[in-house]
Amino acid sequence: MVTIRKNVAAMSGYVPGEQPRSGGWIKLNTNENVECSPAALEAIHSIDPAALRLYPDASSSALRNELARRFNAEPDQFVVGNGSDDILNLLIRVTCDPGDSVVYTVPSYSLYPVLSQIQGARNVEVPLADDFSLPVRKLCSTRGAVLFITNPNNPAGTWYPVEQIAEICESGQNLVVLDEAYADFSGEGCSQLVGKYPNVCVARSLSKAYGLAGLRVGYMFASKELAANVMKVKDSYNVSSATQIAAVAALGDEAWAAKSWADAARRRDRLSQRLSNELGLRVYPSRANFILVDFGNHSAVSTLDYLRERGILVRHFSDNPMVSNALRISIGSQAELDTLFDAIQAALKES
Amino acid sequence: MVTIRKNVAAMSGYVPGEQPRSGGWIKLNTNENVECSPAALEAIHSIDPAALRLYPDASSSALRNELARRFNAEPDQFVVGNGSDDILNLLIRVTCDPGDSVVYTVPSYSLYPVLSQIQGARNVEVPLADDFSLPVRKLCSTRGAVLFITNPNNPAGTWYPVEQIAEICESGQNLVVLDEAYADFSGEGCSQLVGKYPNVCVARSLSKAYGLAGLRVGYMFASKELAANVMKVKDSYNVSSATQIAAVAALGDEAWAAKSWADAARRRDRLSQRLSNELGLRVYPSRANFILVDFGNHSAVSTLDYLRERGILVRHFSDNPMVSNALRISIGSQAELDTLFDAIQAALKES
Repeated sequence: MVTIRKNVAAMSGYVPGEQPRSGGWIKLNTNENVECSPAALEAIHSIDPAALRLYPDASSSALRNELARRFNAEPDQFVVGNGSDDILNLLIRVTCDPGDSVVYTVPSYSLYPVLSQIQGARNVEVPLADDFSLPVRKLCSTRGAVLFITNPNNPAGTWYPVEQIAEICESGQNLVVLDEAYADFSGEGCSQLVGKYPNVCVARSLSKAYGLAGLRVGYMFASKELAANVMKVKDSYNVSSATQIAAVAALGDEAWAAKSWADAARRRDRLSQRLSNELGLRVYPSRANFILVDFGNHSAVSTLDYLRERGILVRHFSDNPMVSNALRISIGSQAELDTLFDAIQAALKES
Repeated sequence: MVTIRKNVAAMSGYVPGEQPRSGGWIKLNTNENVECSPAALEAIHSIDPAALRLYPDASSSALRNELARRFNAEPDQFVVGNGSDDILNLLIRVTCDPGDSVVYTVPSYSLYPVLSQIQGARNVEVPLADDFSLPVRKLCSTRGAVLFITNPNNPAGTWYPVEQIAEICESGQNLVVLDEAYADFSGEGCSQLVGKYPNVCVARSLSKAYGLAGLRVGYMFASKELAANVMKVKDSYNVSSATQIAAVAALGDEAWAAKSWADAARRRDRLSQRLSNELGLRVYPSRANFILVDFGNHSAVSTLDYLRERGILVRHFSDNPMVSNALRISIGSQAELDTLFDAIQAALKES
């Protein structure tokens, strides 16, 4: 038998949301967009054979140039990743020696502790307040090699204002990673802090905002110095040519993206109001393309099962009392959300 | 400023072969196939929008099933990577704590020491013999958390017989990684050792053999136990849906692949003979889709420059005296190789 590192042997690995391979599901469990970027699809459908045969551009130049233009910054402040998970992993590998601390709020993205464990680092959890607001003072005084803040938060979709984030950046943290995987849906972000604080890094994803979860593309925006170190550690050819080409096309179609985000926000707010007003459920204010619904006197787990039996997938997180009686629901199409609403209503009547 | 890990701050990163973004080059420097798999291209051109919008299958099930069929093994003995570089990196992360040894032969793939350095491991180099043959006894007695053997070797294309590899596997090594990125061109491989030794792992790539370098797909074949540990450490969605779909299609077109490999071998042997017989250059016997040419009394570097000025890219490795007066030449199309031959002939006349 091969001897495996102790921390790896002991861990169980990250469990991603269910991705059923068969069709027919109303899939509201992993926050995918209801459509993919049509420009990206067209780019893939007309891809040149040379893009398959030849190695990709190792530094994703065209994509970094496009990002630099959008953020009014320089291309070498960006690193493109094989999804933003790749970026989060690289940031830990660049800053954390075994035994160093990785700080993150709970509940939030459950990948952070897994990436930390792989690196042999120490997990430091800082609980959010009951209303999912940010414990700013506690975060300012907690030290680690890296601090992750998910904004908007996951699974509640809570938006943290830039002033709170700035206060944390000024508190002497080594590296503050702003995981803005869902920020496009919120209409704002904290990227303006990159020019102001050398210790801040914004991570974003095209998975949800551009409907490209299947193609794997995310990026980071930070100081040139940090970006240069991340470039050294990433796989040389970490992003396929097909993905680079599709991502450039997607970013170029700003009208489609703006409409997609505004429509999702509208459907989200409408569903939130109905669940709250008509069914009396607590829905946390969300700025993302999902909502967190607390089932109060009813059972979230029973509702989860009831929905599943009717072909509707939503997400339940059992590991934290703040969310253990809640369900996270992705903002699908209006027809999907109407079906979902009716099913939840029926489930509550039966319970 | 962000504090970076010392080993990362000190390193310079892997430098991949040049990938010019402009056209017009005869590109014989990074061993790409002369064509991409037509089945893969067709699959990409007709990809369903849902494959972009939805997350990929985290475990690349269809591809692992196809690999299991080909190798007459079980799907959970395989892990699919974002290129075989991803696999090599994961194998180090699974077995090497900081300070552990990573053993590899020199010259070979120059990524091994970089991956080792990122992990904070110790690089242990075992020199090949002057004719690129394997120092079997030395490798049997050198201990590390992982030992990499490139077969066929790179940059010479030397094939190491399975008996030599088996002897090394039996010598008490922790993990022996057989990096068979070019094995498809050789017509054989050492995958039969996987069932025999629990400490062996075969890594392969579809980059060259199937002309899919741009899509990033490789895989490992090993014991279920090792595969399960690598699965825990890989990015959950490390391989895009587009790449998974294309790879399954490529593996399904066995006739195209067999012809591609046989044709490359024929062109390789013909070029080797001409360089040797007509120009008196030493060409090492190669079983891969490239050859290493020693320029003897002539200058490899002058020839490299001469070829470059005429739009022909080949690869020079300066860091080892065994190869510092040699050039590695990828097996391009017959027309490209004819142009190359004439250019080398002219370069030698002028020198």
